[in-house]
Amino acid sequence: MDLTQDRGTISVVGIGPGMLDQMTEAARQAIGDADVILGYAAYLRLIDGLAMATLREASGMREEVARASRAIELAEAGQAVVLVSGGDPGVYGMAGLVYEVLHQRGEPSVSVTVVPGISALNAAAALLGAPLMTDFCAVSLSDQLVPLDEILHRVSLAAQAGFVICLYNPKGRKRTEPFRGACEILARHLPPETPVGIVRAAYREEQTTTLTTLGELPGATVDMLTTVVIGSERTYVAHGRMVTRRGYQSKYDLGVR
Amino acid sequence: MDLTQDRGTISVVGIGPGMLDQMTEAARQAIGDADVILGYAAYLRLIDGLAMATLREASGMREEVARASRAIELAEAGQAVVLVSGGDPGVYGMAGLVYEVLHQRGEPSVSVTVVPGISALNAAAALLGAPLMTDFCAVSLSDQLVPLDEILHRVSLAAQAGFVICLYNPKGRKRTEPFRGACEILARHLPPETPVGIVRAAYREEQTTTLTTLGELPGATVDMLTTVVIGSERTYVAHGRMVTRRGYQSKYDLGVR
Repeated sequence: MDLTQDRGTISVVGIGPGMLDQMTEAARQAIGDADVILGYAAYLRLIDGLAMATLREASGMREEVARASRAIELAEAGQAVVLVSGGDPGVYGMAGLVYEVLHQRGEPSVSVTVVPGISALNAAAALLGAPLMTDFCAVSLSDQLVPLDEILHRVSLAAQAGFVICLYNPKGRKRTEPFRGACEILARHLPPETPVGIVRAAYREEQTTTLTTLGELPGATVDMLTTVVIGSERTYVAHGRMVTRRGYQSKYDLGVR
Repeated sequence: MDLTQDRGTISVVGIGPGMLDQMTEAARQAIGDADVILGYAAYLRLIDGLAMATLREASGMREEVARASRAIELAEAGQAVVLVSGGDPGVYGMAGLVYEVLHQRGEPSVSVTVVPGISALNAAAALLGAPLMTDFCAVSLSDQLVPLDEILHRVSLAAQAGFVICLYNPKGRKRTEPFRGACEILARHLPPETPVGIVRAAYREEQTTTLTTLGELPGATVDMLTTVVIGSERTYVAHGRMVTRRGYQSKYDLGVR
């Protein structure tokens, strides 16, 4: 028997930021077709009604490497494995780790597909108004895997470059120093009245959005469920919306059709 | 009769990069519920089967301001207006222009909702492997609304900051100078063997993905349907996938469970 003919697949599937209507049809189909579904318990509960798979394995935070390895093992045994991930698994998500673990083992034994999802930056932007109309960047303030110096240097150059800046993982319960440092560096390069949007638990029941300024940001309530969007010099706030001008105003007369 | 009670709504809806299974359920619902749908003819054809709306108005490229104004007028007349947009309307999309035109007219007369979609960066990343596992930025090389100097300065700082760089609108038929300039500046800061992924027409029938290097990028085939992803020093290519190491390898032993 040639077992290689029976090799399974891994789909790393993004379910979006919160409620399931922010998930794509492709994600829904991959979940429906899976033999096995792996992921955080909270995500497995969320997709409960969509999945036919009988084998579902929940795992906790900080168990990503074990989960990636488990997905590969199950796929090598011929299963169609789905690894569910909040947001987009291709943006600071599980997709990279699955490839890394697979490549570490030599010639890939199974095929991997990434099914993209709405990431925190897409969600936060939609809820705040339209802050990502010009060039933007995403910076994760988690210093678990990246040295803090490197993160803060990047924040500094991003501010100087005029990017709208999306901060992922801005603050943990104990990990507050990167956020403090980032606020300090941003204040060196951008005026205190720079608009800042804060979105917590996007597209979930407990969703909140807050508009503030860079000057007020150090005192703002921010945690691991929060995305912070720092405007650029083209960003304004009007009627409760944060909008970055793309530059049309100089080229067109917006008032007249 | 108090007409203000009859004010309509505008939903700026992202349909994702290509085939409709990359669209969210929320987008599908907004399209299904619309009285009026506005957008490029190609997008209207794509969603034809989803929409009940009898009034559909197609418009061409470079008519964005007129389309935003038309959406506002129809909404002020009490209609539920959907403006469809490829990718995510919150990422270099129509969302900002709708708010800008609305704010230009004074107190907003209608409510606006942005329904996020899978943007080119989410799509390209999923198809290439997992290049966006560390901090990244998006830079549009279109110099129609932003001066070329500003764009190239941003590319330079982005490369120095160690961002993975996603280039939107890299090249037009006549607009080739920004791409040439960007390649030149990137080559000053990054080694020629830096991995580069090129995705054209993501999730459409004519989709192509190409893995190349920064050294080869100036000669690559690139156009307005293309997204270019420039790796960082943590990015590698193996077995046809472009992956950026998040940093796990220094912290964990990936080989052993």
